[in-house]
Amino acid sequence: GLVNRLFNDGFFCLKCSISPLPPPAGFSSYNGGGMNGTSTMMDFLEEPLPGVGTYEDFNTIDWVREKSRDRDRHREITNRSKESTWALLHSVSDAFSGWLLMLLVGLLAGSLAGLIDISAHWMTDLKEGVCLAGFWFNHEHCCWKSNTTFTDRDKCPEWKSWSQLILGHGEGAFAYILNYFMYVIWALMFSLLAVLLVKGFAPYACGSGIPEIKTILSGFIIRGYLGKWTLVIKTITLVLAVSSGLSLGKEGPLVHVACCCGNILCHLFTKYRKNEAKRREVLSAAAAAGVSVAFGAPIGGVLFSLEEVSYYFPLKTLWRSFFAALVAAFTLRSINPFGNSRLVLFYVEFHMPWHLLELVPFILLGIFGGLWGAFFIRSNIAWCRRRKTTRLGKYPVLEVLVVTAITAILAFPNEYTRMSTSELISELFNDCGILDSSKLCEYVNDFNSTKGDDLPDRAAGPGVYTAMWQLALALIMKVFITIFTFGMKVPSGLFIPSMAVGAIAGRLLGVAVEQLAFYHHDWAIFSGWCSPGADCITPGLYAMVGAAACLGGVTRMTVSLVVIMFELTGGLEYIVPLMAAAMTSKWVADAIGREGIYDAHIRLNGYPFLEAKEEFSHKTRAMDVMRPRKSDPALTVITQDTMTVEDVEAIVSSTTYSGYPVVVSRASQRLVGFVLRRDLIISIENARKKQDGIVSTSVICFTDYCPPLPPSSPSVLKLRSILDLSPFTVTDETPMEIVVDIFRKLGLRQCLVTHNGKLLGIITKKDVLKHIAQMANQDPESILFN
Amino acid sequence: GLVNRLFNDGFFCLKCSISPLPPPAGFSSYNGGGMNGTSTMMDFLEEPLPGVGTYEDFNTIDWVREKSRDRDRHREITNRSKESTWALLHSVSDAFSGWLLMLLVGLLAGSLAGLIDISAHWMTDLKEGVCLAGFWFNHEHCCWKSNTTFTDRDKCPEWKSWSQLILGHGEGAFAYILNYFMYVIWALMFSLLAVLLVKGFAPYACGSGIPEIKTILSGFIIRGYLGKWTLVIKTITLVLAVSSGLSLGKEGPLVHVACCCGNILCHLFTKYRKNEAKRREVLSAAAAAGVSVAFGAPIGGVLFSLEEVSYYFPLKTLWRSFFAALVAAFTLRSINPFGNSRLVLFYVEFHMPWHLLELVPFILLGIFGGLWGAFFIRSNIAWCRRRKTTRLGKYPVLEVLVVTAITAILAFPNEYTRMSTSELISELFNDCGILDSSKLCEYVNDFNSTKGDDLPDRAAGPGVYTAMWQLALALIMKVFITIFTFGMKVPSGLFIPSMAVGAIAGRLLGVAVEQLAFYHHDWAIFSGWCSPGADCITPGLYAMVGAAACLGGVTRMTVSLVVIMFELTGGLEYIVPLMAAAMTSKWVADAIGREGIYDAHIRLNGYPFLEAKEEFSHKTRAMDVMRPRKSDPALTVITQDTMTVEDVEAIVSSTTYSGYPVVVSRASQRLVGFVLRRDLIISIENARKKQDGIVSTSVICFTDYCPPLPPSSPSVLKLRSILDLSPFTVTDETPMEIVVDIFRKLGLRQCLVTHNGKLLGIITKKDVLKHIAQMANQDPESILFN
Repeated sequence: GLVNRLFNDGFFCLKCSISPLPPPAGFSSYNGGGMNGTSTMMDFLEEPLPGVGTYEDFNTIDWVREKSRDRDRHREITNRSKESTWALLHSVSDAFSGWLLMLLVGLLAGSLAGLIDISAHWMTDLKEGVCLAGFWFNHEHCCWKSNTTFTDRDKCPEWKSWSQLILGHGEGAFAYILNYFMYVIWALMFSLLAVLLVKGFAPYACGSGIPEIKTILSGFIIRGYLGKWTLVIKTITLVLAVSSGLSLGKEGPLVHVACCCGNILCHLFTKYRKNEAKRREVLSAAAAAGVSVAFGAPIGGVLFSLEEVSYYFPLKTLWRSFFAALVAAFTLRSINPFGNSRLVLFYVEFHMPWHLLELVPFILLGIFGGLWGAFFIRSNIAWCRRRKTTRLGKYPVLEVLVVTAITAILAFPNEYTRMSTSELISELFNDCGILDSSKLCEYVNDFNSTKGDDLPDRAAGPGVYTAMWQLALALIMKVFITIFTFGMKVPSGLFIPSMAVGAIAGRLLGVAVEQLAFYHHDWAIFSGWCSPGADCITPGLYAMVGAAACLGGVTRMTVSLVVIMFELTGGLEYIVPLMAAAMTSKWVADAIGREGIYDAHIRLNGYPFLEAKEEFSHKTRAMDVMRPRKSDPALTVITQDTMTVEDVEAIVSSTTYSGYPVVVSRASQRLVGFVLRRDLIISIENARKKQDGIVSTSVICFTDYCPPLPPSSPSVLKLRSILDLSPFTVTDETPMEIVVDIFRKLGLRQCLVTHNGKLLGIITKKDVLKHIAQMANQDPESILFN
Repeated sequence: GLVNRLFNDGFFCLKCSISPLPPPAGFSSYNGGGMNGTSTMMDFLEEPLPGVGTYEDFNTIDWVREKSRDRDRHREITNRSKESTWALLHSVSDAFSGWLLMLLVGLLAGSLAGLIDISAHWMTDLKEGVCLAGFWFNHEHCCWKSNTTFTDRDKCPEWKSWSQLILGHGEGAFAYILNYFMYVIWALMFSLLAVLLVKGFAPYACGSGIPEIKTILSGFIIRGYLGKWTLVIKTITLVLAVSSGLSLGKEGPLVHVACCCGNILCHLFTKYRKNEAKRREVLSAAAAAGVSVAFGAPIGGVLFSLEEVSYYFPLKTLWRSFFAALVAAFTLRSINPFGNSRLVLFYVEFHMPWHLLELVPFILLGIFGGLWGAFFIRSNIAWCRRRKTTRLGKYPVLEVLVVTAITAILAFPNEYTRMSTSELISELFNDCGILDSSKLCEYVNDFNSTKGDDLPDRAAGPGVYTAMWQLALALIMKVFITIFTFGMKVPSGLFIPSMAVGAIAGRLLGVAVEQLAFYHHDWAIFSGWCSPGADCITPGLYAMVGAAACLGGVTRMTVSLVVIMFELTGGLEYIVPLMAAAMTSKWVADAIGREGIYDAHIRLNGYPFLEAKEEFSHKTRAMDVMRPRKSDPALTVITQDTMTVEDVEAIVSSTTYSGYPVVVSRASQRLVGFVLRRDLIISIENARKKQDGIVSTSVICFTDYCPPLPPSSPSVLKLRSILDLSPFTVTDETPMEIVVDIFRKLGLRQCLVTHNGKLLGIITKKDVLKHIAQMANQDPESILFN
């Protein structure tokens, strides 16, 4: 039946192990513009043959060539601008198109984020009940609209839980079970819909997308990954996935959504549509806008893009990213999805300074965060690998349904897991004020000593103790369920679950320290600053520090993490605790395993990503890495003016290399240039079709002046225009650390190796990555793409 | 006499046109450590001969070599760490030494900044009077200590102006003249002392230091520029210069002071002392700490270092810079020099949101800022060039005294120029509250409509009109005097004067708009948001936006500028006006002249600085830039195994190149490697002295296996160890844009040019810079150093 077919369908089997199959027809929008390039800019760009200078899917771009092409374009426009007013206007509009694009990216990303926030809010509440004043109101809005007075803030007569609606009352065991049942059913419906949509329409919409975006930004091509279908499906399924109550967040996927916006909007501008390097500048800025709207932290977003995601990040991009991030943040704020005019996701205001001794618990939280991060990465990667290699991966829909069911069944009974994770974090960060009615703020009241806004430290009431137990259970549940959730075939972010784990741990520790200080304020360590009746411990701050520590442990973010957290509180005061926890967490996690979760997933999927943070520290040389190896046959080369079309075609068909060095002669092995396989095939095909006298015995000539031939011979095929006359070369003695550095900084695809001026071999990006993997005792065959 | 000698002394004649004369003996501490390297680390580093691998003064470092050396060191330590516990401990301490160093840099920079703040505050007040309760109190502290009540905040009986002290009363024309006289005399004394100290002890202490630090960070060596004497003298003279009332700030020089701290503290750690590249990482972080303490903006400081100052800024450095900046900021705050527990220099809190239409005046301020920035840069550079090329430069002391006298004489009568510039900016940024007694807040009172903390818009009183006139005069004075001040032989920063100009202009515009809105609230543009009795215009915000615009116009900072300003107000709300002004200002200024003030000074002084922000956009190729030119004699090369010591010595003495390519043979011109002049000279000298059998006819051999020689011939000098076997090469057809990119990204000193595998020529960093200057229609001979 249908269900069976859905469950067994192995069309795309694994989360993000993108198989080099093309996505469904019509979905490819990634590089569409470059191919059917019949725009008005045609005359500006030297594109003698369609296809020459473009890339195939799942291949690495040549940064040097792309940047050169953009400079040529720019030069052309600048030169023409002196000729006519029209050209001048064109030049000015060209200069400002980057800013316009940033504005559009910010507006679109901000609007989509607002839409997602509002929908997710409404659908999350739908699991619990419905608003009689209008089904499109969520719980909070419903009670705002209410005119009647009611005691509890969120209990208004207009809002009906499912049991109230169906049974007419909300009390008793049966009503509870009915609500429970509806909660699970809604969750299952949402997640089923999400996984079916992802599976059926946009396989790339799953996961957080950050590992793939990192890879794309480093110069890889995955057609359709940032296309319009991915955008539409990801936006819808993200809402569904978040609403289903799974242990995942919307922050990571928002980066993917923003990058899709950036990529799609690139099509409006020839400058960005046709150039892979320029497009990646836009994507870097879009990633910043994504984080900016996710947390309401524009500066943090820019630093996140700089630190975590981007590869090529010139200063111009920094400024533009900042602009895009600001526009996105202000768009989101004018949509006002939280209804409180706040820009930030978790607004907190602490009043009390912290004491130097509190650094000890903060560092403990850092250690916890580091341990959790390392544990999570190992377990999650092990589980994902299992999914990839066993039959488990064949049933993505079933997997999602099972995990959703377990999550929903476990979550409902516990108040802190039933609420959405963002709400939970908000509540944990919150410092108890006088008016707070939350269970976490049920302290034994002592109204005599209350003065001002700050409550003094007090003995915890029964509510706090209950909350502690529930939080401890929530912690255990979140820790385990997140491992199985991240990597399923639905959009899933890690920021919020990580922060939740840390916030719970932090709050628990914070309350413990607070109670310790209250009951033992005579102890030497407390006596200096925790006199009775004073407010000296802020458990909310501990929650925040814990959240930062866990997020740091999982992602290994540093500066951006601290800045995002700083933007939430707005007080420089609390940077030091955050920094202490983030540093400890990173050190502890790094000591156990060097990779963050995104790098681990990149490696799991075998993407060709050259990490910029890690220094290559082995003492190998270029000759150890280059092809051919000593025992292999000599390097396949093309001579500059002696080979015929036939010879070259034989070389091309007998090898699979993506390019061939051109030399003066086989004997001298003196390098002239480098020609790409793709360009060679296209040019020869084209010449055979359109150029008179080109036959199999025609000589191919790469030199400026071709040698004179006997009059009877067929005409010469001149291919100097497709020859790269400035291939990068290194000597065979060059240390690999320098070679890695060159590949990384210049964004090369390949590099030729010479010895005393003679061509000896070639090193490709894949060779470099394989070598790095080998040196790190990893399987070099895990690098799948070139 | 003495005065004459002082005035005529031309020992160092120009501000920062550092002549390649060594600084006074004993002052060189820049690279001292590397030379007399007899530390415990000796055995780890391959240093066969003292001097090999070090650099001469005013030369460019080779980033690739430095980074390789550090990796070798690191590898060595890591390998040894497995051998013994002691080595393991050493490895751990080595890993943490970077963090320790950052901590120390932060502590020292913060302490020095606090010291400078306190001293400058006291000495500035000394120009006006003295505290009877203790001469070491400044005006504000003096009045805090006072027990008696007094009407005006800053008029307490303990504080005596000079006329009160000398005449016994402060009223009347004579008292005024006496105060005036004392003000000018103190100013002259301070500036005389400052210029004499700079002249006599540390010529490098003058100016802001940022252009030189940029150059040093890009890989240039200026011995003593960051030495201990520069630190001591710069700290002292900075206080003197600021106190003298000259139109200069302490913020730029604080960056220099922090970098000196960083450089000096590097000497504590072998890792940083011996490696120029690692040392520059520390300096980048120190620059961040400098800005952090200058403005109390740690995040802004890090971004300033990233955007404006640094060249090689790996992500690791970002995180460490952030740490150093935070430590420095908190050290400064615990010293609490402003006595208000505020971290930031200008603390402002605005309450009113801004209206979208106000973007028009904000953009006008941006245009003003851009125009002023471009005007200032042109005039200042023209004046500095004049000073450099005419007799004017021969009398630095006289120049300082004249400018000080003019400044002091013009400044005293005007209240807004008499106060220190920081105080002025503070007052301009300030939003008028109920209790403000400043003249700028003398509005016509209308107590009926006053509600809450915010005052409604009111008609300006006479005080405001007086203030407007005085501010206009102050603006004119500041605009002109700053041009002549920046570049004199005293420490002088530009941030504060630029901000003052902008803040005055902004406040003037703000008050104008405010009064316009008050009197014409029925106009269509105001009717929507400026109803009578409402507080709709914040003149302080205009001052802040103006300050940002002018600072942006002069320095061309973007992100860091906005973030620094954001950190002052703490409200994301006001980022949009700041950004609009900063963007406009940069565009306007860039349209007039591409260079910021620091880049202009770098070019004025002919430093070899390869700008990372500007793209090279001309269509030249490597063959157009390389030496030798077509008409020149062939490239000087050394053969790998046929030249004698005599031959090589002849080549070395007949040329001045800093290095020579080594080829297989003159006929084939196939490249083997590159050898540095300095290494060659040292090695040959050493071999002649210490190695038996090395005479003038000895053959020098750079190969692994030297060819067998007849038994009678002298022994062979093997120099493979000093040969760089992996010189960078490009082909002659390589576009210069790629060559520039390689030089910039890899930090090369030279690059060899080949054609079809044959060595053809060489391009040095100086050649590249000269070519860039030539293409920009500038004098290529202005590039002085290699």
